[in-house]
Amino acid sequence: MALTEVSGNKTFGGWQKVFSHESNQLGCPMKFGVYFPPQAEDRKLPVIYWLSGLTCSEANFIEKSGAQRYASQYGVIIVNPDTSPRGLNIPGDSDAWDFGVGAGFYLNATRDPWKTNYRMYDYIISELLPLVNQNFNVLEGQQSIMGHSMGGHGALILALKNPGLFKSVSAFAPICNPSVCPWGIKAFTKYLGPQDEGQWSQWDATELVKTYNGPPLELLIDQGSSDQFLSQLNPENLVEACKSSGVAAILKYRDSYNHSYYYVATFIGEHVEYHFRHLN
Amino acid sequence: MALTEVSGNKTFGGWQKVFSHESNQLGCPMKFGVYFPPQAEDRKLPVIYWLSGLTCSEANFIEKSGAQRYASQYGVIIVNPDTSPRGLNIPGDSDAWDFGVGAGFYLNATRDPWKTNYRMYDYIISELLPLVNQNFNVLEGQQSIMGHSMGGHGALILALKNPGLFKSVSAFAPICNPSVCPWGIKAFTKYLGPQDEGQWSQWDATELVKTYNGPPLELLIDQGSSDQFLSQLNPENLVEACKSSGVAAILKYRDSYNHSYYYVATFIGEHVEYHFRHLN
Repeated sequence: MALTEVSGNKTFGGWQKVFSHESNQLGCPMKFGVYFPPQAEDRKLPVIYWLSGLTCSEANFIEKSGAQRYASQYGVIIVNPDTSPRGLNIPGDSDAWDFGVGAGFYLNATRDPWKTNYRMYDYIISELLPLVNQNFNVLEGQQSIMGHSMGGHGALILALKNPGLFKSVSAFAPICNPSVCPWGIKAFTKYLGPQDEGQWSQWDATELVKTYNGPPLELLIDQGSSDQFLSQLNPENLVEACKSSGVAAILKYRDSYNHSYYYVATFIGEHVEYHFRHLN
Repeated sequence: MALTEVSGNKTFGGWQKVFSHESNQLGCPMKFGVYFPPQAEDRKLPVIYWLSGLTCSEANFIEKSGAQRYASQYGVIIVNPDTSPRGLNIPGDSDAWDFGVGAGFYLNATRDPWKTNYRMYDYIISELLPLVNQNFNVLEGQQSIMGHSMGGHGALILALKNPGLFKSVSAFAPICNPSVCPWGIKAFTKYLGPQDEGQWSQWDATELVKTYNGPPLELLIDQGSSDQFLSQLNPENLVEACKSSGVAAILKYRDSYNHSYYYVATFIGEHVEYHFRHLN
């Protein structure tokens, strides 16, 4: 799998790079960001994966989160993929900001016309992780995952469906229970078919947590109290589901913060430090 | 002068706001950003003004610099205006990214068709500063100024032309000597007329420093060594001019950094701390 370096900018002593490659899983070229802190010149480092939310490309996190400062401080690599296939021009893929392009929901679609390309789950697990391990100087297996909104939920389901793969998981304002909110219902219906066909629970963190079977797992959920999309997010559903399972949940409310990167930037340092502790 | 709050987002414990108002100097509505750190709830605070570079609106600095973190840490307000009048549709104002809209150069134009509206110097000094002093809970007179590229030069000329008005001045990758570089020659010719008419030296920091007459002044110049626009910037010309004047210059080269906000974000904390020391 050949990588092309699209851009590189020195920042906080290290390098923020963007790479592109042809994705077999998605059937199109894909871009992703990698921040290499200065420590990466001397030794193998752990990796934190970041999954972005609806409408985002790889650029939003890179430009707005300020995460590089903390990755430089702690000595971790951060890898952040795009949020969907692009450039395929599948009819209906660009009609709405909350479905199709920019809205892959980190699942494998099973319905036409999406099932051939909308395979973000397999893309992350089976293509991006091996590609990172093979091409960069990383501590293989020392990886954590975090994300925002749709990507916060993506981080949760990737951790829940792959016990032990990630050392820790955290989410900013995740869509905790997509089966019951408008964003999730719309996307799941189109990607997976009607709810009564039984596939939705395989891609919903609040359902997955009930059957989690693996090493002890803690979900760090971060949530702004003034989030304009709170009715889509339902963090209490996830916390309640965790009570009846072996999974711990930490829910941190942040007074007056909304859903934006202004909020993410404020607390990304705490999350990087949290993952760093689990990675060392 | 009525202010309209366009947006407000909580970040780093304070609020990043954007305001709009009708500008008398420019003859159009203008927007500017204000970051209020948490300390602003309790007491009057000093202000740092930030002037942005070519093509920027008020948004670039707000979204990409990460300055809010440091403003919150030190307890300073940061105000950042737009870079030119907008929406006037003056013929030729949008033909190039380095002239007209997004490229006001912080001067008062004297040539048609620019002289009526392209008055960013008077806008900042005679309209924005009083407006900030009147509307927000600031320590009047406790103000510093910094900027990037065209705005780094803007910060330098505003400080040099108004001795004592700003407690300190710093610039990231400023266009130090616009009279001798392509960006400056193009803009000055159109805004001010041919060089031999004698106006250029009033708006060129390297010329102004030679005749500076005021309280002791130090220019903090920050420059990436891999800046792709270094041939437009000429920091050595400014440093050389300072040697024959009463103005001190500190020129800090940053190894491998380019002209981008990745570079600005890395060192903005140092600059905020520098101004904070001069403001207290």
